Amino acid sequence: MKKIAVIALGGNALLRASETGTIDQQETNAYETLAKLLELIRSGYNIVITHGNGPQVGNIMLRNEAGFEKYKIPKMPLDICVADSQGGIGYMLERQMRNVFNDFKIEKNVVSLITQVLVDINDPAFQNPTKPIGSFYIKEEADLLAKVNNWKFKEDSAKRGWRRIVPSPAPQDIMNKQIIEELVLNGHVVIAVGGGGVPIYRHENKYLEAIEAVIDKDSASSLLALQIGAEVLYIITDVPKVCINYGKPTQKSLDVITVTEAEKYMADNQFAAGSMKPKVLAAINFIKNGGAKAVITSEDEIGKEHGGTQIIS
Amino acid sequence: MKKIAVIALGGNALLRASETGTIDQQETNAYETLAKLLELIRSGYNIVITHGNGPQVGNIMLRNEAGFEKYKIPKMPLDICVADSQGGIGYMLERQMRNVFNDFKIEKNVVSLITQVLVDINDPAFQNPTKPIGSFYIKEEADLLAKVNNWKFKEDSAKRGWRRIVPSPAPQDIMNKQIIEELVLNGHVVIAVGGGGVPIYRHENKYLEAIEAVIDKDSASSLLALQIGAEVLYIITDVPKVCINYGKPTQKSLDVITVTEAEKYMADNQFAAGSMKPKVLAAINFIKNGGAKAVITSEDEIGKEHGGTQIIS
Repeated sequence: MKKIAVIALGGNALLRASETGTIDQQETNAYETLAKLLELIRSGYNIVITHGNGPQVGNIMLRNEAGFEKYKIPKMPLDICVADSQGGIGYMLERQMRNVFNDFKIEKNVVSLITQVLVDINDPAFQNPTKPIGSFYIKEEADLLAKVNNWKFKEDSAKRGWRRIVPSPAPQDIMNKQIIEELVLNGHVVIAVGGGGVPIYRHENKYLEAIEAVIDKDSASSLLALQIGAEVLYIITDVPKVCINYGKPTQKSLDVITVTEAEKYMADNQFAAGSMKPKVLAAINFIKNGGAKAVITSEDEIGKEHGGTQIIS
Repeated sequence: MKKIAVIALGGNALLRASETGTIDQQETNAYETLAKLLELIRSGYNIVITHGNGPQVGNIMLRNEAGFEKYKIPKMPLDICVADSQGGIGYMLERQMRNVFNDFKIEKNVVSLITQVLVDINDPAFQNPTKPIGSFYIKEEADLLAKVNNWKFKEDSAKRGWRRIVPSPAPQDIMNKQIIEELVLNGHVVIAVGGGGVPIYRHENKYLEAIEAVIDKDSASSLLALQIGAEVLYIITDVPKVCINYGKPTQKSLDVITVTEAEKYMADNQFAAGSMKPKVLAAINFIKNGGAKAVITSEDEIGKEHGGTQIIS
């Protein structure tokens, strides 16, 4: 096992719910989040940073539509939008990581990679799209767009309108895993797998082609952590610990649990889909396939001895 | 000198003037362009691919404006737009490079990096912005935007309207030069310095901050080639050779010229600003600072013994 930690940052590493998402806010948030990684780095971990892209890619897709309407600029498909978001977010994280290192007198290099992730075209997710993306529409607009683009739509659970849904297939292979491993073992901080990676598939087992889908960021980070032999996987969210019986009088936060316990809680439906569930699943996957420790926690707890909820074998 | 070739692709590597720029067109163009690099790879060169982003970043900026108008999505500054374009273009080039390698049975890995390039805040370019970017406006709109954003505008020479102009400072340092060198010397194809890189500067000699500017792609590619000790710099354009007395009865294409000859032609104003001039300047800079050979040519001539116009010491 190599002393590598993969840290999967949540969407709020850059964009907080209370903010509109100006560039100044994102810059400040990025710096503050990245400074929290210093403890891990000081204790000798080589680190890979992965990150979400929900708000950013949502904005890119809306601009895509507005640009087509106003200027007839060809719309870019989802894969290009995800890749664009990896560019903008990766750049900002890299620049602020360099600023953190400068402030704290740490001699380390940083690099941001564009990451493609292979999926299986026969993944059942393609028959059952579940992931909402882009803007909200009224029913009539959604019906029209569905017809024109062969898209699928679903009404938002909070009744804010209809949203396009796309498949969220399981990641099969991180295309630049070897290069990420090379770079991180050379001591560089690597930023990669943004937004779960750009999903691609092998057409007739040969050509790499784009496909309209999104990959869960925590699931892709877990796969990367396994493929590069990382010791620890951090999944960063906005609460310090995972809870069971959430919102009930018996609510209890978890400190250290085994995979078996985690799977039992999972079977009891303790974790909300689209929220804590994919994070616990990613953690379980990491430990069951050879990882030493997965930690689900908030930024403030990164690198602390008893911080967060630890999942072990 | 290391057997490295830096190949600076022009904008038409992806987007041709006769096309609207749909994604299918860009994919096909990318594959065709990259297949032209095989000869160089087969003759033992490790390669770094750099690329322009003019049409793509222009589209991203227009979408930015349309998205703000229609949905009030905060506009992103130029640095983020350039980084976004590095993401989308780098991803597409990387995927098609992998397809070329698969088709031609070449075992090589490919990686795309987001690249920041340091500029000097005291560069005279900041007092004299020259590079037109984004959309065309009528005079009244341009005046309003100039006032609101503190932007500068200039009327287009072809009278298509007024366009924002930004500084085009000289590149001082390619921030990820060491990592690019490491990767390319390990035999990987590296895609980097897209659109000339995202320009940043050191605020009070300390923090790395964004700045509204664009860096000439050929100039940044020349600097990168020097910083990683490349032997050859290819600057790809849409003509096979550089000409003197262009458009006159005495027009003559150049095969092999020395730096001294190139500088003489430059002094004679043989090359058009914004077109061949920056390419010849980038070539001269490369050779004067230690490069072995710079070649200005079209895709079809890459790797051919007597292809293109060669500039030597």
